[in-house]
Amino acid sequence: MKVEIHTTLKQGVLDPQGKAVESALKNLGFSGIREIRQGKLFNIDMETEDPKKAKDLALKICEVLLANMVIEDYKIKIIKNT
Amino acid sequence: MKVEIHTTLKQGVLDPQGKAVESALKNLGFSGIREIRQGKLFNIDMETEDPKKAKDLALKICEVLLANMVIEDYKIKIIKNT
Repeated sequence: MKVEIHTTLKQGVLDPQGKAVESALKNLGFSGIREIRQGKLFNIDMETEDPKKAKDLALKICEVLLANMVIEDYKIKIIKNT
Repeated sequence: MKVEIHTTLKQGVLDPQGKAVESALKNLGFSGIREIRQGKLFNIDMETEDPKKAKDLALKICEVLLANMVIEDYKIKIIKNT
């Protein structure tokens, strides 16, 4: 079962990577962009085919390793069988 | 208009970050994970409210700056008005 996890910085936490991309785009002549915030994306292939088990495992992984709960939020998406 | 861009390494391109996360999880005692691949996530707030224009701008940004077209794929998601 495929699971997608997004980790993003919480609202209000400074995001220097996102700011760097924003100013790079301005320097390249792009306009019409208000804000960019950058996060991480994890595509996980799990052995289980049970969506509930996959979600539970994903939650644990996020809290233990993938997301820094102090400054980051995470989102888990279970992707249908491939 | 909010736009979400995912960039991921193409199939077959070595992903050392993903492998590091995989082995860290194994060392922490997690099992049942076949593979992890890590990518980048960009949450963009654009001035335009026209989904077509937002998509065109996102495409240009990806090809010029966000994705390395040699080794990365990208996906663009237009997110409804917030």
